[in-house]
Amino acid sequence: MKLLEEKIRSNGRVLPGGILKVDSFLTHQIDPDLITALGREFFNLFGSCRVDKILTVESSGIAIAFAAAQFFKVPVVFAKKGKHKNVGADVYTGECFSYTKGEPYQMSVSRAYLNKGERVLVIDDFLANGAAAKCLLSILREAGAELVGIGIAIEKGFQPGGKELRDMGIRVESLAVVESMDDLGNIAFRS
Amino acid sequence: MKLLEEKIRSNGRVLPGGILKVDSFLTHQIDPDLITALGREFFNLFGSCRVDKILTVESSGIAIAFAAAQFFKVPVVFAKKGKHKNVGADVYTGECFSYTKGEPYQMSVSRAYLNKGERVLVIDDFLANGAAAKCLLSILREAGAELVGIGIAIEKGFQPGGKELRDMGIRVESLAVVESMDDLGNIAFRS
Repeated sequence: MKLLEEKIRSNGRVLPGGILKVDSFLTHQIDPDLITALGREFFNLFGSCRVDKILTVESSGIAIAFAAAQFFKVPVVFAKKGKHKNVGADVYTGECFSYTKGEPYQMSVSRAYLNKGERVLVIDDFLANGAAAKCLLSILREAGAELVGIGIAIEKGFQPGGKELRDMGIRVESLAVVESMDDLGNIAFRS
Repeated sequence: MKLLEEKIRSNGRVLPGGILKVDSFLTHQIDPDLITALGREFFNLFGSCRVDKILTVESSGIAIAFAAAQFFKVPVVFAKKGKHKNVGADVYTGECFSYTKGEPYQMSVSRAYLNKGERVLVIDDFLANGAAAKCLLSILREAGAELVGIGIAIEKGFQPGGKELRDMGIRVESLAVVESMDDLGNIAFRS
């Protein structure tokens, strides 16, 4: 998606350690017009499928998933990280590892909001190692819900998550795939 | 706002300990039509003021603030809880206490995304003791930004936060003010 690639080129920053910072429009400050356009694009891609619900994970996924949900006209559920007193015991949980924070964490979704047979579209801001996505998939399996596909804003194509998920037969649609980036700030996208 | 009050009456649950659970449409699962309507209502209330930016806090505030930002056509910044490696050292921080989790926590916003003189509307899902709102205000003060007002989805009118903030001369607009609630699930709203 040209609009997103241009935004990454003009506003993203490459930091040492393979970090792509897009906190000026996606992960800390949010550009509402851009994110609404991403939501519309996910609807263009998956709108012909039956989607009952959108699943994402706090926090950076929420705005994108919500923007998509406005087009799909279905609820969003966001998985919570860590142990939340307010979620209660009746949750699906998955174990995940944050490469950003360098520590493991738990992800959970109330059983009340994922139902057997529901067709669920997973949406998230980033796909790199695929740890968060796989954790959401394990939660969907536990719930007996059906995965429609995975919509990602930015995929780091040089990390293995996208290939692994596609090799599992999952439809993964990434709006921008970073093929390579270097410390000078050069970013190449998969065409 | 009638729409929100009706949704709270029909889908909210009162739990022992003064907890109002609205996780079926606001804080865990998100109803996109309702949340979009809340965003529109904040624009109706504050749209005649100059607003340069909307500030909220992860995670439950994000969808509401984003929905409002779509009408205001300004960026949203969400404060992050805890220490985030990716935020970096160059942040405004505030100390806060979570009555839900029963523990203190830190809130932070990158200095890059709050500027001196910017007119900021604070939006959040809940106002009870006002701890989160006051923490955001201290961050705004540190940044030298100007507070336009505070937009809240659900205020617990029987807790002191709303009164304290209004006594400080701050314009606080809550779309639903719960005046009282009991363990039988009866909820009365301020008219």
